[in-house]
Amino acid sequence: MKRIKLTVAYDGTNYSGFQIQNNASTIEGELKKCLTALLQEEVELIGASRTDAGVHALGNVAVFDTDTRIPAEKISYALNVRLPEDIRIQHSCQVSSDWHPRYQNTIKTYEYRIYNRPFPNPVVRLYSHHVYWSLDDSKMAEAAKYLTGEHDFASFCSAGAQVQSTVRTIYEAAVQAEESGMITIRLKGNGFLYNMVRIIAGTLMEAGRGSLPPEQVQDILAACDRSKAGPTAPAKGLTLMGIQYL
Amino acid sequence: MKRIKLTVAYDGTNYSGFQIQNNASTIEGELKKCLTALLQEEVELIGASRTDAGVHALGNVAVFDTDTRIPAEKISYALNVRLPEDIRIQHSCQVSSDWHPRYQNTIKTYEYRIYNRPFPNPVVRLYSHHVYWSLDDSKMAEAAKYLTGEHDFASFCSAGAQVQSTVRTIYEAAVQAEESGMITIRLKGNGFLYNMVRIIAGTLMEAGRGSLPPEQVQDILAACDRSKAGPTAPAKGLTLMGIQYL
Repeated sequence: MKRIKLTVAYDGTNYSGFQIQNNASTIEGELKKCLTALLQEEVELIGASRTDAGVHALGNVAVFDTDTRIPAEKISYALNVRLPEDIRIQHSCQVSSDWHPRYQNTIKTYEYRIYNRPFPNPVVRLYSHHVYWSLDDSKMAEAAKYLTGEHDFASFCSAGAQVQSTVRTIYEAAVQAEESGMITIRLKGNGFLYNMVRIIAGTLMEAGRGSLPPEQVQDILAACDRSKAGPTAPAKGLTLMGIQYL
Repeated sequence: MKRIKLTVAYDGTNYSGFQIQNNASTIEGELKKCLTALLQEEVELIGASRTDAGVHALGNVAVFDTDTRIPAEKISYALNVRLPEDIRIQHSCQVSSDWHPRYQNTIKTYEYRIYNRPFPNPVVRLYSHHVYWSLDDSKMAEAAKYLTGEHDFASFCSAGAQVQSTVRTIYEAAVQAEESGMITIRLKGNGFLYNMVRIIAGTLMEAGRGSLPPEQVQDILAACDRSKAGPTAPAKGLTLMGIQYL
């Protein structure tokens, strides 16, 4: 028995999220179906990040145990032939049998993309959130800098999350504006609470539009109250860029 | 009667090109249907560029004549409400009644995008051509520079095109590589022959892969023979960025 680690990219548009469900199409469900067909054995997957419906990923991670004689590095190719074109394995390799994608120190990188132009752009519509009023990206960047460091992010966590602690560390919170109208929020941290990136994006957009003074992010953090932060930004703007295992 | 100019963006994935057809979904067909419903009159459209099936646009141009009392600038908003989400008007304005989108001096800008990584990336799959062998973008840029200026581009024109002259001027032919693996070929010119950008992209990819010395582009141009150039690159990598009227 060996444990295989997969790095998985997907377009989340047509899926009800990562985690397997009975009556809905999910990333895990597709992976499991194709793995079972490829390996001719029942496979249990453990995913690193259970991304929500509509969220994209370039580098989510999952592991499974197998007796297959297919070399670990070749599994990526063999799986990609079977997977739908909106899911593509980027890398496969063997890891030790106790290697777990969640119970480890990691740095996760997320990007939230906002297309900020008067009219929507059809070719980016599935991978960004369209905002037609003008956003001041320098104000967004200013608001973002208050997020870096170790904080209690309870204000940036949707109700219903079951976590022991809402303290997390953000290593980088950058806002980059391109000439095309795309504004990208990049967050690197040691962990993210439920909807945390989307609530941060919703809050930074309020700062960008002028309805929230950037320095107020400090008060929002201190309040530990979800109602003090901005709205949860739509899923389609969010992409899990990668997970770095330390 | 007034003439209205539309600047149109679309995701060409699900269309059989711009030009109206009887039994296929096209950009022009969708525009005409929505305009007729909006204005309650029969509308004839004249498009600037009849992009092929699968080709995208951020700034194609079309005009139509109408008696409507809707202000020209508001037509964009009214149309966008009716159009499918993969077509979006970017701008509408009135032009003089003899303003024609084709019979004028213009600079057209096209981009051809190549995703150059070992594995496909699902979130860019619809808007770029995936090449898994490594391309040398500096060789592509070197090959591209021979294209600038006035040349007979007969070697870069698919058979079946009915044009009087195959001489065109390219003002800019740039190749830009990003860290993400995306290579963008940007071409600005006073006109492009049938499939010209896609044949140029196919030829530059041969240069990037090392199977065509960059300076050989000069011989290809001189030959005026389609068979001397590279293959026609797939439609989905191509985007008409905009048309500048001089």
